[in-house]
Amino acid sequence: MSYQMLDKKVLQSVKDVAHKLRIHSITSTQAAKSGHPTSCASLAEIMAVLFFQTMRLNLKHPRDPSSDRLVLSKGHAAPILYAAWAEAGLFPVEELRNLRKVDSDLEGHPTPRLNFIDVGTGSLGQGIAIAAGMAYVGKYLDKAEYRTYVIVGDGESAEGAVWESLHFAAQYSLDNLCVIFDINKMGPNDMAMEMEVYRERLDAFGFNTLTVDGHDIDELNKGFHNAANCKDKPTAILARTTKGKDFLAVEGCEELHGQPLGKKAEAAIQHLQFLISNPNVRLSPKKMGKCGRAPEVNITNIMLCVPPNYRLGDSVATRLAYGTALAKIAADNPRVIALDADTKNSTYADKMRNAFPERFIECFIAQQNLVGVAVGATCRRRTVAFVSTHATFFTRAYDQIRMGAISNTNVNFAGSHCGCSIGEDGPSQMGLEDIALFRSIPGSTVFYPTDAVSAERAVELAANTKGVCFIRTTYPSTRVIYNNDEVFAVGRAKIVRQKPSDEVLLIGAGVTLYECLEAAERLEEDCITARVLDPFTVKPLDVSLIVTHGRLCKGRVVVVEDHYQQGGLGEAVLSALADQRNFVVKHLYVPTVPRSGPAAVLLDMFGISSRSIYKATMCIMKK
Amino acid sequence: MSYQMLDKKVLQSVKDVAHKLRIHSITSTQAAKSGHPTSCASLAEIMAVLFFQTMRLNLKHPRDPSSDRLVLSKGHAAPILYAAWAEAGLFPVEELRNLRKVDSDLEGHPTPRLNFIDVGTGSLGQGIAIAAGMAYVGKYLDKAEYRTYVIVGDGESAEGAVWESLHFAAQYSLDNLCVIFDINKMGPNDMAMEMEVYRERLDAFGFNTLTVDGHDIDELNKGFHNAANCKDKPTAILARTTKGKDFLAVEGCEELHGQPLGKKAEAAIQHLQFLISNPNVRLSPKKMGKCGRAPEVNITNIMLCVPPNYRLGDSVATRLAYGTALAKIAADNPRVIALDADTKNSTYADKMRNAFPERFIECFIAQQNLVGVAVGATCRRRTVAFVSTHATFFTRAYDQIRMGAISNTNVNFAGSHCGCSIGEDGPSQMGLEDIALFRSIPGSTVFYPTDAVSAERAVELAANTKGVCFIRTTYPSTRVIYNNDEVFAVGRAKIVRQKPSDEVLLIGAGVTLYECLEAAERLEEDCITARVLDPFTVKPLDVSLIVTHGRLCKGRVVVVEDHYQQGGLGEAVLSALADQRNFVVKHLYVPTVPRSGPAAVLLDMFGISSRSIYKATMCIMKK
Repeated sequence: MSYQMLDKKVLQSVKDVAHKLRIHSITSTQAAKSGHPTSCASLAEIMAVLFFQTMRLNLKHPRDPSSDRLVLSKGHAAPILYAAWAEAGLFPVEELRNLRKVDSDLEGHPTPRLNFIDVGTGSLGQGIAIAAGMAYVGKYLDKAEYRTYVIVGDGESAEGAVWESLHFAAQYSLDNLCVIFDINKMGPNDMAMEMEVYRERLDAFGFNTLTVDGHDIDELNKGFHNAANCKDKPTAILARTTKGKDFLAVEGCEELHGQPLGKKAEAAIQHLQFLISNPNVRLSPKKMGKCGRAPEVNITNIMLCVPPNYRLGDSVATRLAYGTALAKIAADNPRVIALDADTKNSTYADKMRNAFPERFIECFIAQQNLVGVAVGATCRRRTVAFVSTHATFFTRAYDQIRMGAISNTNVNFAGSHCGCSIGEDGPSQMGLEDIALFRSIPGSTVFYPTDAVSAERAVELAANTKGVCFIRTTYPSTRVIYNNDEVFAVGRAKIVRQKPSDEVLLIGAGVTLYECLEAAERLEEDCITARVLDPFTVKPLDVSLIVTHGRLCKGRVVVVEDHYQQGGLGEAVLSALADQRNFVVKHLYVPTVPRSGPAAVLLDMFGISSRSIYKATMCIMKK
Repeated sequence: MSYQMLDKKVLQSVKDVAHKLRIHSITSTQAAKSGHPTSCASLAEIMAVLFFQTMRLNLKHPRDPSSDRLVLSKGHAAPILYAAWAEAGLFPVEELRNLRKVDSDLEGHPTPRLNFIDVGTGSLGQGIAIAAGMAYVGKYLDKAEYRTYVIVGDGESAEGAVWESLHFAAQYSLDNLCVIFDINKMGPNDMAMEMEVYRERLDAFGFNTLTVDGHDIDELNKGFHNAANCKDKPTAILARTTKGKDFLAVEGCEELHGQPLGKKAEAAIQHLQFLISNPNVRLSPKKMGKCGRAPEVNITNIMLCVPPNYRLGDSVATRLAYGTALAKIAADNPRVIALDADTKNSTYADKMRNAFPERFIECFIAQQNLVGVAVGATCRRRTVAFVSTHATFFTRAYDQIRMGAISNTNVNFAGSHCGCSIGEDGPSQMGLEDIALFRSIPGSTVFYPTDAVSAERAVELAANTKGVCFIRTTYPSTRVIYNNDEVFAVGRAKIVRQKPSDEVLLIGAGVTLYECLEAAERLEEDCITARVLDPFTVKPLDVSLIVTHGRLCKGRVVVVEDHYQQGGLGEAVLSALADQRNFVVKHLYVPTVPRSGPAAVLLDMFGISSRSIYKATMCIMKK
């Protein structure tokens, strides 16, 4: 489809709107006494063209699954994004003056507290992954016409996550994705990063790359038209812009980054008003077409298509049970998807790939993009995503997971290869801080299933639980201890061994639960009976069951985990008991960087074996 | 300097050594019953040429500051690295059979438990940053002739961290750095990643890019010669290789990734022996030259050149005191360096840049590379590095920091903008999990200075403390409460308010310490006297002081922090009291994702203000 230039009147109207957006960016940050108006100014024409010539929106339902998406990766330009929605008619422009106030959702950086925001941004370099996730779903699952736009700053293009995502987008031919680089050249990063360098890099990463004057309405409009008509390649629009553009006495002034204009505001606004030819200009966004809409989907009540099917005493790794359960819930619901970062053979996500290859997304060895794509793929309730890799490699994407919580994401994570029990591969491969990481995520649920039956139920529960879920799976095989019909629930622990005479409560999960059981056997030989508790979820923890049984066991608790001391199961138990007097807790954990060796030897060497539990219990019995 | 081809005899010897390295890779992984021999095989000629034609080494002191460096970013190829050092004569080749055994330091992935390893690798995509840090120091600080080599796998080149580091290396013209890509094309990543794509990408990222047959000794040797003679640009050697090269019946066989050859080992070894023309071949690495050596440096006993200079009651942000102290210790020792990721104006690292620009490294908005460069810069005790950015953005580099602990790094981190107290910028910018992150690092020290005096001393102590140090600094100004001559030590808390009648111990740090003091005032009006404790270091925590004073306060403790519940100061206190009966702890923390607003309003809204502390104390008084 060939491009037709805008007629002069329309062109002038869009220009006028751009200047109005500039004025709003000044006035809102003036009212807030903080913010980044000059970072907004460089985007004014880009926003005006996107909102009033390009994107197809539904103002009645801004998160309509069929409408186009926009992710503002450079989240500090929030004021102009808010201004664009206000000018489009979503809410009164007067509200823009509430920017950054505690009783307004127009926060300093965008969050989905606003009904027109899909994801929180503000930690730089994360927007493209999210947009790529949306685009992937649009192209391959929804098979719909909506397009995804993402605006990236030049400073943030130093983030490696950006290049992970560009690589991903090109590999999967996401031609429904358009990445706009706002190159206002103010960062410390500008030495060699001239336009030509960007162009070479984007070309080399497989993009349809267009260089435009980011303040020229017609060039921008043509660029978006070109992008929409380019097949099999995502488009990068490299927009050459000026920071503080058209702000009188401010344009191009680096020192004013991240500050309202203060005393210069009034003159700048007057100048902008002078540039506007029709102060009453009013444009509307395009509407969505009738065709190519996203299908209606239902992602509730997801179940294992068949229940767990093991025999008590079977030896099965929980990571294997994870893969099995994943394929089972995917059979139950066509919107369950799985993503992995070149570890599918060891996380057992390959069971999903084998069963439903079209719903498995290989994200290569790039964990930040992996997580971002999943967050994007779940937006607007399009999918239920399960992301797997080795537990410790989620540390690579901690920032993305943290931002996921701000985005109210429901992504589920599964981390295999936890703790010393992986053995010979050594410390770089051992997840020893993963519980700490996922516990720190607001609203998260942390599953730590001990056997295959509970692991399958963890997957099923995670699929239906809001917020970030994490399932910690174990490398070696462990004994099945629950019946196939055992009922599990979030926040409900299990007592797996007890006698009325119990004098100590042992708490373990995964490999350490078996160590607890073995320690209990040995203790009984010495006439000490121990109760054993399997928490199932570390967060929320079953506080009342722990308090009740801890009291029955004379306030003596031994908690043991294949994890570092900080932030894991042990500190979760201590938090649960914080406001209880008369408890004494002995916490066994991996105290230092482990090493390569056989799993059983390491568990003992680092003090979390049955022998260590036995000793700790003997010691605590005196208290 | 023009290149002269190797003479035939030398060429054959290097070839023979390469095959010997292959044999060792098979036999050691056979003995271990695990490992990645085929990933070693693709590297055999590269290793042979590096060790026996290119690198200048000191076998008596493998970490000689003047010798060349090699970082094996693809750490799973450890067996062939170990084999090369053994063949070079560092230790008997028989020891290679102890690979992965618990009593051997020849671990599954390299760690600096071995005297010839600088840093732990095995989490992919991290090696180039470390090598770039070494090269930066070599070129700009040591001004020495040593060169730095780093071997990267093709799979790991999907990691964004790789591209952050390539950008950095080119920006700083690190012509003493040579990055070798072992392109054995076995990952899921190989679709479009043909050699030409690599070449275009590396060219676009500013490298001197050479494509070679990675199994051709002469081409490799010529490549390294070219690299050594290229000025102002780092070199990338793109080596086209084959996985399992010259392993009979195994070469190019993807299924065998990460497995020993098993039954195929014997035939493969026989075939390799057949390929070796002189089984007794023995080569030695090049020695270091007499010129261009690295200077001797002393990085001990670093002190503030002048003591803190504040008045009690002054209002000074601890982040500002951080910058001041940094410049002061840099004045005391010429090996103190600072690194920042485009946040120097707000972390106040710019004070260092202004005073000693040649020791300030701007790392752009790329936190993974930031941390990796610092780890590399501190290797072989060349520098004392301070890395700063906003506290929450260290989540971006959690994996690098985690690996830093495995590398025994002494890098110091300073995170500004912690907690809700940053106010209007909103949750994406608030560090609310940074204490959890840094506490989880084995051997770490976590400073949380409350005022400017203690902040300056934290910087001084960190400079002299082994292991990872983290200094959490605060955005708003806080009141100076310590005299300039107050003595601080790691693990020593301060009682800042006490009376004999105290019935509750309040623990806070940073902004919450002031809230505790204010709450204590209000409580006293209600005839309840409270003791207030400032921990100074959250890790190690002053357990004995807390236990002693907690007991004196009837076992009642209120701990309050501008951080999420998990893994922070509160859980540290709970861990400290775990084995004490008769304590009751009320923990106040930020319970959910905060929002934009004035700092004081947010502290109250999220339950960590003096009002909340007052209420919590009234409640705990009943227990």
